[in-house]
Amino acid sequence: MNRVYLDHNATTPLRPEAREAMQHAMDVVGNPSSVHAEGRAAKAIVEKARGQVAALVGVETSEVVFCGSATEAAAQVLAMPWARVFWTGVEHDCIAAHVSDHWYDLPLEKDGVRQTMPMESLPFASGDLLVVQLANSETGVTQDDFATMTEAAHSGALALIDTVQMCGKSGCDFGASPRKGFHLMSAHKIGGPKGVAALIVPTGTNVTAMISGGGQEMGRRSGTENVIGIAGFGAAAQAAQRDVEAGRWDRVEKLRNILENALAAASKTTIFVGKEAPRLPNTSCFITPGWKGETQVMQMDLAGFAISAGSACSSGKVKASRVLKAMGYSGLEAASAVRVSLGLDTTEDEVLRFAEAWTQKLKKHEARAA
Amino acid sequence: MNRVYLDHNATTPLRPEAREAMQHAMDVVGNPSSVHAEGRAAKAIVEKARGQVAALVGVETSEVVFCGSATEAAAQVLAMPWARVFWTGVEHDCIAAHVSDHWYDLPLEKDGVRQTMPMESLPFASGDLLVVQLANSETGVTQDDFATMTEAAHSGALALIDTVQMCGKSGCDFGASPRKGFHLMSAHKIGGPKGVAALIVPTGTNVTAMISGGGQEMGRRSGTENVIGIAGFGAAAQAAQRDVEAGRWDRVEKLRNILENALAAASKTTIFVGKEAPRLPNTSCFITPGWKGETQVMQMDLAGFAISAGSACSSGKVKASRVLKAMGYSGLEAASAVRVSLGLDTTEDEVLRFAEAWTQKLKKHEARAA
Repeated sequence: MNRVYLDHNATTPLRPEAREAMQHAMDVVGNPSSVHAEGRAAKAIVEKARGQVAALVGVETSEVVFCGSATEAAAQVLAMPWARVFWTGVEHDCIAAHVSDHWYDLPLEKDGVRQTMPMESLPFASGDLLVVQLANSETGVTQDDFATMTEAAHSGALALIDTVQMCGKSGCDFGASPRKGFHLMSAHKIGGPKGVAALIVPTGTNVTAMISGGGQEMGRRSGTENVIGIAGFGAAAQAAQRDVEAGRWDRVEKLRNILENALAAASKTTIFVGKEAPRLPNTSCFITPGWKGETQVMQMDLAGFAISAGSACSSGKVKASRVLKAMGYSGLEAASAVRVSLGLDTTEDEVLRFAEAWTQKLKKHEARAA
Repeated sequence: MNRVYLDHNATTPLRPEAREAMQHAMDVVGNPSSVHAEGRAAKAIVEKARGQVAALVGVETSEVVFCGSATEAAAQVLAMPWARVFWTGVEHDCIAAHVSDHWYDLPLEKDGVRQTMPMESLPFASGDLLVVQLANSETGVTQDDFATMTEAAHSGALALIDTVQMCGKSGCDFGASPRKGFHLMSAHKIGGPKGVAALIVPTGTNVTAMISGGGQEMGRRSGTENVIGIAGFGAAAQAAQRDVEAGRWDRVEKLRNILENALAAASKTTIFVGKEAPRLPNTSCFITPGWKGETQVMQMDLAGFAISAGSACSSGKVKASRVLKAMGYSGLEAASAVRVSLGLDTTEDEVLRFAEAWTQKLKKHEARAA
């Protein structure tokens, strides 16, 4: 029987449109920095993609800075000399890895939703950075981009908004919010290739180059452009925008709910994280206290299902989720969570097969534990 | 008539082996950081490529750190807290962009070859960095890796060797030299895709991460790996190694010499830069004083030939070559240079057609100037 891939928040298959654009780009010889016809053809590919990426999130083409990963984009912004950095504690490792003594926690409500604060008593000011992940990669819980941008605008601070999981799954229009900050995007979360991403830098906001050299990306990120990857990113962005506009994620949300209902029916002790909060349509994070997430991932892998415990961890080791601990879950609970994340092509049959296999493994776990 | 691409030092076409490996990688869904079968399959692609890249330059697999560009790799090393940086003044922009007041010029001989210095009076010491481009991208003039590494080893300094143009055109065995420093490689110069590169960090040498997060690349460069691009890099490295070992560049060197002889016969005033120095087999940089390189590039582009003036410049503007000025050429001479760089598939017919077209344009230039 075919394997079932339910780890789309870790990475999602390459869209056919992205593949086609990449195959076309493979035939283009030039370096986008070269002035001859071959160079101009390569540059045209990059600029077409820049427009497609900008359109997905409603920003100006000139505001898109291509780079190698959202992790790189975050590092570039975080390397700037901020007076203070405010963050929520539920951010991705690409943020958490930078925490230092001038970083401060923002208060969270239940489910990791950031508390909006009264405008007259915002703790941040000009020179500060406010870091918020718009949709949490582990739980799918979403934050209010507009509120963050408004707080930043009101206080004079800038914001760094990690939109990696949100954009392409839900409508994003960053051009409409008060433009006081940076947004992160990643191609491989929306059906583009891994290794290409974008930092959105609003017009009028400065960003310091972390990688200097030939002056590519308007001096904001030097190095020869990943032409093939960027072509795939652009095509994926266009296709993702089409799918968001067509409401294709509504069906995915229904499947996610079918899944959670099936799991809840099988297990009275399982906790569905963020179920009452605004959430991505495709994500389910659930805790079965005492059954290690790491074990669940391995058992389900052997049974033919790809899921994850926490966010993808580079070392291959799986730790108790820092995010869940920051949300107030105990160490035991945080170590007993798994994430199932569906894709646009996930079927009801796949979801039900997962629920059935998981239930069988749960029964074995309960029998051993008893 | 087909266009003739003679700008292989700017970037060279994707090798069929790279394309095939990339197309295979497009079918692999997983994130290399995921522990499930899909993740392990993606990781296997990255690790296979790491071995292929390591083999091309004779280093250990664990010494290869994949990144987004040689520019990024250079920035990572240069961001470390060096006491002093010694450089030659003929380096690529990815080095020159970092020059600051603790940087010092190393003496050059004729043709931009670095003077080796008596071991008893080396100006550098522990805590210093010595930056040398093994083969100059504009002139093709090569330096002695072994001498640099020996000087570094003797003084306690570390070296940063830019091997981007050298590796894949000439045998490189960095594992054999005294291992006191870093090497830069770039996929798209050897028939891999743009946007993927490697920093070689010898065992026992520390490098500080510039991009932190999930801890990929053994914590030395975080961010989800460019799996498709890395697959192409690996396959290109393997093919490049095969071609170097088969001596395929000897034919290219003969063509380069045929080209230079034809141009010299047409123009008594043209200077061939580095003709007496050790040079890459494929590169010819020549100065025709008073005939702007920028103009030559545009005229030849219209005539169907892709060449460059200096290294590829991201702004699309072409300036007088900083490298040629550092070699002692006048501003007029440095502004009157073009670079022709051949590829493995360049034919004698293409080279002779170029020489003929260039000679015609030269005659028109001389007629206008007279």
